[in-house]
Amino acid sequence: MRSDRADVGFIGAGQLARMSAAPAIALDVRLAVLANRPDDGAAQVIPDVMIGNPDDPAAVEALARHCDVVTFDHELVDTTLLEYLEAEGFAMRPSSSVMRLSQSKRMQRERFHELGLPAPRFLVVTERAPVADFIDLVGLPLIVKADRGGYDGRGVWSVDDRLALDSVLDELAERGITPILEEQVTLERELAMQIARSSSGEMRTYPMVETVQIDGMLRELIAPAPDAEALQELARHIVETIAADSGVIGLLAVEFFQSNGTLLINEIATRPHNSGHYSIEGARTSQFEQHLRSVLDLPLGSTESTAKWAVTENIVGAPAGDLTRAQIERTMALDGVHLHLYGKDVRPGRKIGHLTVLGEELDSARSRARAAAAIINGECQDD
Amino acid sequence: MRSDRADVGFIGAGQLARMSAAPAIALDVRLAVLANRPDDGAAQVIPDVMIGNPDDPAAVEALARHCDVVTFDHELVDTTLLEYLEAEGFAMRPSSSVMRLSQSKRMQRERFHELGLPAPRFLVVTERAPVADFIDLVGLPLIVKADRGGYDGRGVWSVDDRLALDSVLDELAERGITPILEEQVTLERELAMQIARSSSGEMRTYPMVETVQIDGMLRELIAPAPDAEALQELARHIVETIAADSGVIGLLAVEFFQSNGTLLINEIATRPHNSGHYSIEGARTSQFEQHLRSVLDLPLGSTESTAKWAVTENIVGAPAGDLTRAQIERTMALDGVHLHLYGKDVRPGRKIGHLTVLGEELDSARSRARAAAAIINGECQDD
Repeated sequence: MRSDRADVGFIGAGQLARMSAAPAIALDVRLAVLANRPDDGAAQVIPDVMIGNPDDPAAVEALARHCDVVTFDHELVDTTLLEYLEAEGFAMRPSSSVMRLSQSKRMQRERFHELGLPAPRFLVVTERAPVADFIDLVGLPLIVKADRGGYDGRGVWSVDDRLALDSVLDELAERGITPILEEQVTLERELAMQIARSSSGEMRTYPMVETVQIDGMLRELIAPAPDAEALQELARHIVETIAADSGVIGLLAVEFFQSNGTLLINEIATRPHNSGHYSIEGARTSQFEQHLRSVLDLPLGSTESTAKWAVTENIVGAPAGDLTRAQIERTMALDGVHLHLYGKDVRPGRKIGHLTVLGEELDSARSRARAAAAIINGECQDD
Repeated sequence: MRSDRADVGFIGAGQLARMSAAPAIALDVRLAVLANRPDDGAAQVIPDVMIGNPDDPAAVEALARHCDVVTFDHELVDTTLLEYLEAEGFAMRPSSSVMRLSQSKRMQRERFHELGLPAPRFLVVTERAPVADFIDLVGLPLIVKADRGGYDGRGVWSVDDRLALDSVLDELAERGITPILEEQVTLERELAMQIARSSSGEMRTYPMVETVQIDGMLRELIAPAPDAEALQELARHIVETIAADSGVIGLLAVEFFQSNGTLLINEIATRPHNSGHYSIEGARTSQFEQHLRSVLDLPLGSTESTAKWAVTENIVGAPAGDLTRAQIERTMALDGVHLHLYGKDVRPGRKIGHLTVLGEELDSARSRARAAAAIINGECQDD
């Protein structure tokens, strides 16, 4: 008779925990989730659900007691609580220090600078005096980022003049959030690379991918990134350096700007990530299976691609509301379109799913993926 | 707010329902299972579990009331009950008449004969008198099959002489089961082909596969069957004829003997089947996703292969008992080995999982699959 304990517990029950269920079933890894609500995406499909707030120490500790290792669907968790649980002997994977790094754009910028890794020039604004010199150095417009709390484009501002800048700095000061100024780089495109690291230190990188962002949210992904062979080695060096230096256990994604033909680090995520959804069909081992392998210290799987190209389109809630059966049917009727829905109520602009198309020709795969996305996103009229 | 109803309910909660969970999550199809026990393979991983016996009319009716359509993890269900529920307006997919066909070797033999489809010569033994003539016609040894109740080699006997034959016939007569005699064909190999048919009549066939049986249980599968191009059209004709004639909704597998260079029908299964497990990684649309699409009358997906070859090995419980962490780790350390465990307690000879290897060279894929199977089946000593 098996015990009632779970092998892996997710703090949070969104689409990342939800998409972890399939490889967990195959490997007979038992998942539990700490969900805010019983109808959270992952709580709909995983039997072992604890309801509670990730900020509630009792709820998180109860999850930790129930599972062999704790991992994360999102970063919105108090690292002091994680430290306390680590001290109590619970396995947090990744660790509280890694979660602190992933929550703080300031710590990322400062640590990557110490490591000599390429990134936009930046200034952590702890006082106003050096701001003028920084503007002289990098010019206007420039970028302001909140140290913490931003995602999908929130917490980032582009400011054109000193007046607008001061207004953002004042607002952040009022909210007690440290601002970081960054030069506005010449952006050729955005790229990302994922790496898995297990607690024994084994690492495997995935190929670099190209991401197309709209309003700060990933909308299209191409794997591997076209014409990026010359940058693969630099990217591997960066992700391996960050993985080893941080001691991350699990998946790490590093998002890059391509600027003047080279790579600059944008930010990192220390969990499965939108830039790896293509891997469900497009890699021998999906990022979700790889994350489970990593946190359970199982051997890592092959990151080899299953096709020459994979194109993923995000599905975003339309103003019209819920997907219709006709939209879903028309999308599923397209051969080779792999649809993933997250079980979310539709709200305009909300990520509610994605789809992936594999192919031997990029143009064809991309146009098939875009056609499918147009249908499911409700941008096409019925015939 | 979503309703509490499920889209698809499985009668039975074994590995077929379990492996349906992954595509159901991706497509946001809500599954329910009628499980004998809370620790049945699918009941471990699907939140919506009803506990009950598939022979209990109240339990099956409760499942039907809870779900838009009812489908099957196994055939061990009373077709009279299914008929009654159909008459009450519940959607059984496939229908009670298809389930009756799949439960009865006699009905299969008789119907396929009426349809002019190739099969071994046979005699339904309702009286003893014609038996001697049948022996004169096809010779000894011959095969005796129980009309119903057999699986994985049970319910099939090879008899060498009249004495042994009469002993089996007496035993079956005592149990009230009709015997079927079949000629023992020259068996070159066993093959199988799957087809999906949706309620709107759309059909898609999968490539023919070769199956290697040991003690009546599938142990190794090669997809597509090597050197079988000349037989593909005949196989397609047979599976399409049976699918259309029976009106099956969902997956249908037809198992064949290859004998004297042509195909003879062995038997059918009207559900996802062991001969299609390779399709999880080896086909654009797995048999489990395809079954859900079929029974929900969604468009069927591409059955194209994702690699030139797929080799699947069944994992069978060893006398030594439970799998060890070392066995699982050593198997997972082999790149490109896709492991699927069914969450079953290990008993000697019990199917507890399978693994699939894809490749461009058959010999290499098969030797990698066999090496992995030897490790996980405990046939290798540690180094």
